[in-house]
Order: sequence, then C-alpha cells, then structure tokens
Amino acid sequence: MSDNPSFVLNAIENVSYEERPIPDIGENDVLVKVMKTGICGSDVHYLVHGRIGDFVVTNPMVLGHESAGIIHKVGSNVKNISVGDRVAVEPGATCRTCEACKSGRYELCPDIIFAATPPYDGTLCRYYKVPSDLAYPLPEGVSLEDGAMIEPLAVGVHSVANLGGFRSGQSIIVFGCGPVGLLCIAVAKALGAARIIAVDIVQERLDFAKNYAATDVYLPPRFNPGETKIEYSKRNGDNLKAVLGITERGKNSLDLVIDASGAEVSIQTGFQVAKSGGTVVQVGMGTPDVPINMSMLANKELTYKGSFRYGPGDYPLAIALVAQGKINLKPLVTHRFAFQDALVAFNTTKAGKSADGKALIKAIISGPDVSLEDN
Amino acid sequence: MSDNPSFVLNAIENVSYEERPIPDIGENDVLVKVMKTGICGSDVHYLVHGRIGDFVVTNPMVLGHESAGIIHKVGSNVKNISVGDRVAVEPGATCRTCEACKSGRYELCPDIIFAATPPYDGTLCRYYKVPSDLAYPLPEGVSLEDGAMIEPLAVGVHSVANLGGFRSGQSIIVFGCGPVGLLCIAVAKALGAARIIAVDIVQERLDFAKNYAATDVYLPPRFNPGETKIEYSKRNGDNLKAVLGITERGKNSLDLVIDASGAEVSIQTGFQVAKSGGTVVQVGMGTPDVPINMSMLANKELTYKGSFRYGPGDYPLAIALVAQGKINLKPLVTHRFAFQDALVAFNTTKAGKSADGKALIKAIISGPDVSLEDN
Amino acid sequence: MSDNPSFVLNAIENVSYEERPIPDIGENDVLVKVMKTGICGSDVHYLVHGRIGDFVVTNPMVLGHESAGIIHKVGSNVKNISVGDRVAVEPGATCRTCEACKSGRYELCPDIIFAATPPYDGTLCRYYKVPSDLAYPLPEGVSLEDGAMIEPLAVGVHSVANLGGFRSGQSIIVFGCGPVGLLCIAVAKALGAARIIAVDIVQERLDFAKNYAATDVYLPPRFNPGETKIEYSKRNGDNLKAVLGITERGKNSLDLVIDASGAEVSIQTGFQVAKSGGTVVQVGMGTPDVPINMSMLANKELTYKGSFRYGPGDYPLAIALVAQGKINLKPLVTHRFAFQDALVAFNTTKAGKSADGKALIKAIISGPDVSLEDN
Amino acid sequence: MSDNPSFVLNAIENVSYEERPIPDIGENDVLVKVMKTGICGSDVHYLVHGRIGDFVVTNPMVLGHESAGIIHKVGSNVKNISVGDRVAVEPGATCRTCEACKSGRYELCPDIIFAATPPYDGTLCRYYKVPSDLAYPLPEGVSLEDGAMIEPLAVGVHSVANLGGFRSGQSIIVFGCGPVGLLCIAVAKALGAARIIAVDIVQERLDFAKNYAATDVYLPPRFNPGETKIEYSKRNGDNLKAVLGITERGKNSLDLVIDASGAEVSIQTGFQVAKSGGTVVQVGMGTPDVPINMSMLANKELTYKGSFRYGPGDYPLAIALVAQGKINLKPLVTHRFAFQDALVAFNTTKAGKSADGKALIKAIISGPDVSLEDN
Repeated sequence: MSDNPSFVLNAIENVSYEERPIPDIGENDVLVKVMKTGICGSDVHYLVHGRIGDFVVTNPMVLGHESAGIIHKVGSNVKNISVGDRVAVEPGATCRTCEACKSGRYELCPDIIFAATPPYDGTLCRYYKVPSDLAYPLPEGVSLEDGAMIEPLAVGVHSVANLGGFRSGQSIIVFGCGPVGLLCIAVAKALGAARIIAVDIVQERLDFAKNYAATDVYLPPRFNPGETKIEYSKRNGDNLKAVLGITERGKNSLDLVIDASGAEVSIQTGFQVAKSGGTVVQVGMGTPDVPINMSMLANKELTYKGSFRYGPGDYPLAIALVAQGKINLKPLVTHRFAFQDALVAFNTTKAGKSADGKALIKAIISGPDVSLEDN
Repeated sequence: MSDNPSFVLNAIENVSYEERPIPDIGENDVLVKVMKTGICGSDVHYLVHGRIGDFVVTNPMVLGHESAGIIHKVGSNVKNISVGDRVAVEPGATCRTCEACKSGRYELCPDIIFAATPPYDGTLCRYYKVPSDLAYPLPEGVSLEDGAMIEPLAVGVHSVANLGGFRSGQSIIVFGCGPVGLLCIAVAKALGAARIIAVDIVQERLDFAKNYAATDVYLPPRFNPGETKIEYSKRNGDNLKAVLGITERGKNSLDLVIDASGAEVSIQTGFQVAKSGGTVVQVGMGTPDVPINMSMLANKELTYKGSFRYGPGDYPLAIALVAQGKINLKPLVTHRFAFQDALVAFNTTKAGKSADGKALIKAIISGPDVSLEDN
Repeated sequence: MSDNPSFVLNAIENVSYEERPIPDIGENDVLVKVMKTGICGSDVHYLVHGRIGDFVVTNPMVLGHESAGIIHKVGSNVKNISVGDRVAVEPGATCRTCEACKSGRYELCPDIIFAATPPYDGTLCRYYKVPSDLAYPLPEGVSLEDGAMIEPLAVGVHSVANLGGFRSGQSIIVFGCGPVGLLCIAVAKALGAARIIAVDIVQERLDFAKNYAATDVYLPPRFNPGETKIEYSKRNGDNLKAVLGITERGKNSLDLVIDASGAEVSIQTGFQVAKSGGTVVQVGMGTPDVPINMSMLANKELTYKGSFRYGPGDYPLAIALVAQGKINLKPLVTHRFAFQDALVAFNTTKAGKSADGKALIKAIISGPDVSLEDN
Repeated sequence: MSDNPSFVLNAIENVSYEERPIPDIGENDVLVKVMKTGICGSDVHYLVHGRIGDFVVTNPMVLGHESAGIIHKVGSNVKNISVGDRVAVEPGATCRTCEACKSGRYELCPDIIFAATPPYDGTLCRYYKVPSDLAYPLPEGVSLEDGAMIEPLAVGVHSVANLGGFRSGQSIIVFGCGPVGLLCIAVAKALGAARIIAVDIVQERLDFAKNYAATDVYLPPRFNPGETKIEYSKRNGDNLKAVLGITERGKNSLDLVIDASGAEVSIQTGFQVAKSGGTVVQVGMGTPDVPINMSMLANKELTYKGSFRYGPGDYPLAIALVAQGKINLKPLVTHRFAFQDALVAFNTTKAGKSADGKALIKAIISGPDVSLEDN
C-alpha cells in the first residue's frame, strides 16, 4: 500500500516528494506516525555534498533522522508500547548479534540500519518503522518537539556523561555552540557542572549559550598575520587560561573538553587547556586530519576519545533529564516548518538564519498531517 | 663529604667527571650505591640537544636514570629495607600531597624530582639518594642489570597493562622496535597476548623482535613518489591488514595499538588498523604535531591515550613479571661499559651500534667501583 | 608550651578537661585553631564502650574528629595556605608511601593517624596539627559550622559518588536517616538523583528526611509474631516494592542501595530491592555478622561494597557541592554547645534528643575560645 | 518430524528417553547435532530435588546444557557458519532488547531461554536449536569434548577475568575444587597468576588441583568442639595466613578471592584472607544465607560480587585460551558415557565417583549417534 509521502534526496541539491509504500512491520516492530523531525547538519551535508566520508548517496534516499511521533501500529509480539503512545524514535536499528551489540557498544555495530545514512531511508515521511525497543515513550510534560530533540540530546549525553564520565561538581569547556555543542552544555548543566565554558567564534552564539546554560563564554582572538594554526592555538589557549583563570591542575582546571566544532584550532586549543590527566571528547567533524600536539598528549596523559552517535542508556538518560526538568529543550527550537516546506527548512539550516535574519539553532519539520502548532 | 664521582653534562656535547658531595639523607631516605645504569634515548637527547621540549639544561647536570644498586645507608625511619639489599631505583620522587599524587596518578605530579631531567641530577654517580619506598628490593634471580632495566620495563607496563588495559588472549601491535617498543612487546607476551605484531622500518630490528617475543613482524613499504604521509599511512594500513589478515572487528582484530616510534606515519597507520572500539597508546615521542584522522577517531570511537613515565604499581608489576620468569630482560642488554667509558656508551647509543657493527638495544654502564662482570 | 585545653576520654564514661601541650609543627604542617567540632556516633561509642571493634582506648585520648578552624601557624614549606584562613580539617594523616596511599585509596593506609581513633588524639582542643594539604580552605559562603560538617559529608560523598558511582538521573534508596544517611541523601540530591527513597523506623526521622531532600520515605512494618529476620526482610522488601512501585529492572528500579543503618534487616531488605546488576554500599556499622542472601547476590549479580571513611577527592567534592549551593548543611545542625559543655553534647547525642525533647541530628561544640554565635 | 531422541526429566528421580520433534529453525538459527554434553551439578540437582531455588520442574524437561556438536542445518540468514562446522553451544538465548542485553550484561536478561532451566528443554538430545551467534566454531586442536567443557569454563572466565578483573602477576585463592573451582584455577593460570591457592576439605581434590594448576593448596582444620562457624572461620583464616605466608597488604596478599564452594565457612574465611581493597567473587551456591562480617567488609573496603553464568566475551575468551594452549581441559574429563547410559552418568556425578572408586571431575555423555571415542 502506498500512502506514505516522503521527502527524498535524489542527488546533490535535488529533492522531491514521493509516495513511498507503507512499511510492513515484523512481530517486534512498531510503525510510527512521524510528527516532528529536527534537521541536522548531516542532513544538510548530504543535500549539498551527496556524501559524508565513505557514505555516498547513490540511490534516492529519504532524509531526516531526528524524529518523534505517535505509535500507529504494533507487531504481534510488542507488549510494552501501544497504538497512540507518543514516542521518541532512536533511528539506528542494530544487528544485536555482533560483538559490539552484545558488549554494550551497539553504536559500533557494522550492520546498523541508520535513518538517512545511505543506503537507508530516513524519517521525513508519514510512517517510519522501527524495532519496538527503539520507540521510547515520552513522559508527561515532554512534548513531541522535545521528543524530536532527544536524538541530538542523546549525542550530548553520549559524549558528556558516557564517554566523558562527567560528574557533578566538575568543570567543562565546549568548543562550538551549534546544536550539538549547546546540548553538550545542557547535559553538563543537568549533571551538576560547577563551570561550563562555551567557546565560539560568533558572539551571537556565545550570547545564546550564556543565556541558555553556560557559566562563562570565550570568544577567541583573531589570527595574527603569518601565524600558523599551531602557533595560534598555543596563544589562544594561553589567552583563554589567563582570561578565565583556568589552570591545568586543581580546582580551576577543566575536567572535560568537548570539541563540537571539528575545527582544527578548537581541537588544538582544547588540548592546551585540558587538565593534566583529563579527557578530550571529539564529537564534531570538520577538518579531516587534525595535527595533535604529542607533548600535550603525553605529558598530561590526556585521553582523547572519538564519539559516534549514542549507545546503550543514552536515550533513556536524555529523556529522563528532560522529564526531570534538568534540561529545557524549548529554547533551541528556533524555526518550525510544515512538511511541504522541508526544502526551506534545509536551506534555512544551511544559511544558519531565516530570511528575517533570525539565527537558527534547530529547525523542526512537522509531519505530513501535522500542524505547526500540534506539539 | 665529597666522594661521589659523577658523570656530568655541562652543555651540549660537553661532559666531564666530577666529584660531587655525597647526599645527606633524610629519615625516610636511602642512599643507594649505584651498580648498573642503562642509557636511554632521552639521556642522549640531552647530550646532543641540551633540552627535551620545555626541559632545558641550563646548569651542569648528572646524567642517567635507569639504575639499580645496593643500599648503602638508610634513614632512621626506614624499616623495610636494609643496608646491603639489592634494589631497583624508581627515579622520580613526588610531592605526595598534590591531587595527582593522592588520586593514584603520581606520574602527573608537577613537583616530581626526576633524575636527569633538568634541574635535577641523575644516577650516573656512586651514591644516589631516594625515598625508601622508591628502592624496590630485587627478588632472587633478578640481577642488578635486570634491575637497571626495570625502569624502561615500567614504561612498558604502564603503557600496555595500565593505560592499555591489555589482557590475556588479546592482540596487540607495537610500532617501533627500540628498547621501549621491545619492552612493550615483552609485557604483552607476559600478559598472555594471543598475537603480537611488531612494526619497524629496519629489518634487523624486526628479526630481533621476532626472535625475542613478537608473533608477527611487519616491514612497511617505501613511499611512492609524490605520496603524502596521510595517503601513505592509509595504503600502509590497508597493506598491513591484508598481509597479516587483520580486521577491524572480531577475533582477528587488534585490541591495542602502541606507538613507541613517535613517527607520524606509524601513528596514522596505527589508527587505520586499530579495532573498532579499541585503544591507541602513545608512548614514543618524535614528530611534535601529528595529523590524526578524525573519521577514524570518531567512527571507530577510538580511545587515544598519552603515556608518561609510570605510576603506582608499575614498578612492582615489572619486577614481578621478571621474577616470575614471564619476561627475560637479558637479551636486551647488548653492550656494557665501565663508568669511565660512559661517553663511549652514549655515543654508541646515539649511533645505534658499536664500532664492531653490533646493533645496540641497550647499553649498561657499571658504577664507579663495579666491574662489568659484577652482575 | 602548655596552653591547649582539651576534652579527654580517660576511660569508659570518664572524661576531663586537660591542658595539653601545643603541638610542634613540622615544615609541611599547619596548626589549626579549632572553632567548631561535630559529634559523631563513634565519639559517643568510645565514651560509652571504650572501644570500636579492635580499636581500644587504653590511654587517655582527646575526643572529636569533625572539625573546622582557623589557621594559627604554618610550617616553613607551606605555601598555599596562610594564617587566618578558614579551613575544614581532614582528620586522617596517612603515610603517603604505602601501596594504598600511592594507588589512590589512602583510606586503606594501615598507618593512618586518625583523630580520636586510639591511640591518636582528636580535635576537641584549642590547637590541632595537620599536614597542610589536609586543611581545606573554605570558600566564601561556607561557614565554619559547615566546615565541621564536611567530615561526615565526605563519608556520604565517598559512599554515594565514589564507591556508588551514582549519577544524575539515577535512583537511590538509603536505609537509616541518622546524620550519615541524611548526608548520603544530600549527596544523591546534589548529584541529580531522579528519586531518593529514605527508610527509617522512626517516623520523625522520615519527616525530617522528606523535608530535607528525600523524594519518598518508607516506614517498614512491624515484625510478625514468630517471623525470622530473613522472612521479615523478604516481606519488607516485597512491601516496599509494592508500595513505592519499585521494580528490579528498568526505569523504576533502584540503581544504588546505601545502608547507613547497620541493621541486619535493612541490609537484607536492601538486597531484596536492589536493581538487577545494581550496587549496595555498606556505610553503617551495627550487627557484626549479617546473613546475606546468596541467591539475590548471584542471580542479580549485585556488587556489595564496604565503605570506610573517605579517600582522594572526597573532601574537595564535598566542599564544592556545598559552595555551589547543591547541598545545604545548615538544617542538620540542631544543637550547639560551648566547649565547657562538651559532655552535655555527648549525652545529648547519645540520647538522640535534648532535655527539651528536640530531636538531634548533629551537635556542634565550639572551640575553647569561640562563642556559639561565632560562625 | 519426530526423530530427536532426548533424555527427559519427568519428575524427581524420574527420567526417560523420548522421541521429541526436531526443532524448526528460524532464519537466524542453526540446528546443532549434539555430540558431547557435560553433566553439571545443577543437572543433578534438578534430578534429585526437582528445583533450584525459584526454578521448579513442573513439566517434563530435557536435561543437559554443556554441549558441543556439529552444525546440521542453518537458517537462511546465517552466513558465518556452515553445515559440518564443529561448535561449542552457548545455551542461553537472550531477548536482545532489554536494558541488560543492550548494556553488555545479557546474563541478566529476564527472558533468557536457558537450556535445562525450567521451563526450557536442555541439550541431551540429538538436535538442539540455537541462534547462530551462540554456536561458536571450535578452532583446530580444540576437541568436541573440549567444546562441551567451554560452558563451565566460561563460568570461570566470567568470575575470574570479567567480574574479578584478574591480571597477570596477581594472586588468587579459590575455595572449592569441584569443576567450577578447578576451571577458575585454570583461568587464573592462563591469565598469568603469580600464585593460585586451592582450598578444599578433601585432600584428594587438593592433590588434583595441585597437579592441575594450583601453586599452593590448603586443607582447612577440623572444627573445635563448641566452636561457632564464625569463630572457626576466623581461626581458619588466621591459620591459612600463617601457613601460607599471606598478608592483607603488599606482595604476599591475595588480589582475588573466589568462592566456588557455596559453603558458609569458606565464604567467611575468604573475607578474612582477602586483601585490603580486594575483591571476593561468589560463584558457588550452597548455604542460602551466609553471615558476612561487616567489619571486614568495611575496614578493608572489600567488593563482593555475585557471579551468574557468563556474559559478552566470555565464550570467545574461554575458547581462545584453550586454543592458545593456555588451558588444558582434558584432565578434567574423567568419565565418559554413551547416550543410553545417561542416568548412570548422573548417578556417578551425584556420587562423585564411579563404581570402580575413581573420583569424578566431569562426566561427558556422547550424543545419540556418537561413539565414546569420537572426539
């Protein structure tokens, strides 16, 4: 049966709406009626470049992977969830049998079916199928828009709480104040951070971060003429430490560095300011190969971890922190679009602001049958 | 009282023998009569360059830090060790009061007094003072030369067992077959490695590694004309995986990557071949800033750790593994010198081989009053 | 010089005031003028029984170990603290050289000099000597009474945050609402607990806990005639689960169980209600040998940990959580006594309430020269 | 189709052979032709008592769960394993969707289908169905009998390597020298133990353990008249420490205590002799409620862990250690029986020795069509 309007990427900068078949569901699956979908930088990247690294769009692919919806249908074995339940959708179905899946790191499953990562279709459609355990009921007080934001929030939970091991009373610095950076900041606050330093090269973003959850913000200086990136990063790090009273040991030190920018100089500066014995988590992607200072790595015995999506427990913790009121996702949703305006949503996300000049943090696209107000 | 002949670095390539005062010992110290001292690449580096990174030799400094000896005198509070005991000397006296010292990572103590790291004198002398808990009695069957080798072995223990968390049945790859690389290999074998791959650009070193403890060796190909280091590393990694049947998941994967070379292409290749979810430990220093591939880091969620000297438990485990017969240090001592020939030892270490062409792994210098045979 | 009035336990129920010599301080020590001292159950236990387990009072011993004060004098090497600084005193000076001290578990140092644990004198005196790193400056806004409470708070931090690994969004149950139990509850709240269940057999204590920081309270039922403790505990656990909607898995489960009561039936009930795969931390002492159900331990793969005092990082985190406003210690100080009324303070603590019937949580004794109001 | 002879427990001490249907397999399953099955104490317990704790045999149930066999048929999706492959069978199929399954602790899955645990049938039959990832190919040199032994060996791996975190150079004590205790000893040896102390009340078992892999053995003394178990355990612990030169700290201490006996006095003695800061793992079941000494638990900050079956990575490590020659399972197989003699095998296991007086460690029953020699 074909009654599943979908927003499809055909080729670079070439999109269309298509009627796709409604997926058949297995006995352990649910069919979700998609209500709200956030647009992520990676979605835009596929639109513009047709690829991210080794993942190449060769066939038409439905976009979107940050979604919440309402259970439309459940498989015969599904017990803990019912038609009509409001849910956040975890958009990666894993094999459940490989070493990664069984050892508690399913984000590393090589056979993961991840929405809007080629060759798998995404969630910008009317009906999306997932295994029932990947549809997480939204507690009262958590809206469908919040539900769509759980996906990027889970990225923050994975980076800050899980890989970063961040704990109450500790201090953190986050480079990059896009959605992921802001959500890392939100998680740090929810976990009880003593100090949260937000870094960005755009003052407006810093203002937002400060207003949202950061305790301190830092705007890096400009490059000096002829300065290399490494020289700059050293100077930037020294300046940051001086301006903010940061040390590499003791109570003024930074337990955790999150790079959510992917920018070479951010990462290098992060190594400069990290605490001796501290951790740097890389969640942003940008410069493909980033020169890392070996002396910093060795002399401070830093731990540098790559972060990829999210794993066991990240969705539940993300939802719990929102439900407990420790994280407020609402200020991050700055733009809302109807399903038929999906391309505008993408272009607005690419531009970083709407035609009226309003800076964008996150655009949410409503489902095909959903009004902007239905929340 | 001045009766403490010492081998002193005055300035770059300028050494001399001096009579230094015999150190006064405090109530918790011991005075060790130095019997055997290994020469480390860092000692040579100070001789040739007068500095390592920010550590600059500005005043004359006694060289040497890999030593074993015999207890000559003990402080009034010292109970567990007696005059005449044979000991390995841990050459870093820490403050014991800072956060690092108290939290079990004393290698990160900012006030460490480390032998032959400016401005602190080293162990190439007759008498060296240490806190009594840094003089580790050598069990029967562990020779004084073995005792001198405990220092670099502790570096291997710290990297492989402690930071690397390596366990029986796992597989490891070690880049660089100098003394530290070989000792990492020895530790991996002692811990029960299933597979140990040694990598070096010198076939002779690979032969030694294979004969010593590696299960497999790998000689990287030459650069192609015009090839960048990053391109080369990718090709090298692919080749290594193909030749040795390495995968990034499952039982043919490499749980731990140790870079004991410091070479950019080794580190980059290490990231290529590391297991998904695996760990890379950096113990060697070379290229100051090494471009790291962000996709590898993120997509495989690698953990990249800097290793610095050794910490709690590393000396005891190193000694235990030797005493239990799980590590044989003797093949690594290829050259022996009398105290008065210390400069020859340094030059031989620098050359990597003696005048007769014999490749050097480790040169040991006997103490001022000690014969080469006294072991 | 003798100008150090001290409150001394001579024998069971036999105390006196004595002028003790002012301690000489070493170059790394500080002399603290004691301002405020909390009374702990263990102090009372020594007064009443003359011993705790193998620790027997055989010689007169100054009591008290929960103290804050003002730096009166500093040793010649002391740099980071000055005369006049307000400090919390960590009352256990460790050897700093044993395996426990060096590996980050100094609470297990066999040679610890712990205040008011025989044969070592406590802090109920005018001047008390500690190594300078055990005197923690109190941030602005943290009072001297707060400072005295840091000691029992550190016990809570050690149990909940450190051994318990408790994190934001998790749920906890605490058996026993005496000072340590309440402080565990305070720590759990500060760490971001989703749910904190307080259990006690005294309704008044539960009311206090609920008002202070617990989200739920539970009053166990009475014993049935002829019921064994094991039968009772099973019934109690089932009842607790039913009443509070607790399960052994999923989002209604209890990640951490703290027993701060030492009571056999509390511990057994704790095992009944713990989450599958969860942790039970034992911080209270009472019944010497407690029957543990092996099926619960095995089938749920529980981890049961003994907690002893506090270790690295616990004092700093305790102070930080108070300074950041995440913990309010003031409600716990219910009774205040002048130095000359120390015995009244002890008797009030023993009775659990003052003559006016006011229930006691914590009694604070001011220093010899300090007014009750000087805070 | 019915061509699947099975050994069925109908009720207590009531068994029979039945033709059961050959299981249909799903697309991800394999059908294993069972070749060799070891008899476990739990199988015997069901035969004699009809239950283990809450697991009660109410309907006829096929016995056996320690099996190896040959792949007879594979589901349509199965790729990595083929008809004819020799495999060890992991006999617990989990739900793969619950929190335990996804977080890397699938042994805690509440919906596990475990062979010969009511109501699920076991492996003493011709054909047994499992998900394909639970059939582990046996490397060359690992026999089918070895394959049947992988199941109990995985219990040892789980307890010693996984929960116990045991590492090369450490020391261990194992209480109870039945099959599980001996396999824990084998694992400890394979992991590089410095010292392995085996404890049992039967000298013959100690002789076997010493001959097999223990470095030391200890036969506890008899009870004194009127002595309580707690008094005895204290005396036993002191005696053990004195006789074997065990301390609670330092290099003569025991890093890990395994109780594979379930006996109250063994567990209590284990707490007495455990290292300060050490770990006790409970793998045996016996006394239902065991009094644990709270002072030992708290003052030494012990960690006491229950061990249940095995989890992610345990089967692969068990197989790897055997394949690498670090564990020799052959000496443990003391008795072999044909399928039609299954009851004799059970009775021999119950008796602990065969009619000829030969002590039993493990009895292996061949499959219906398999000769005793076919190995």
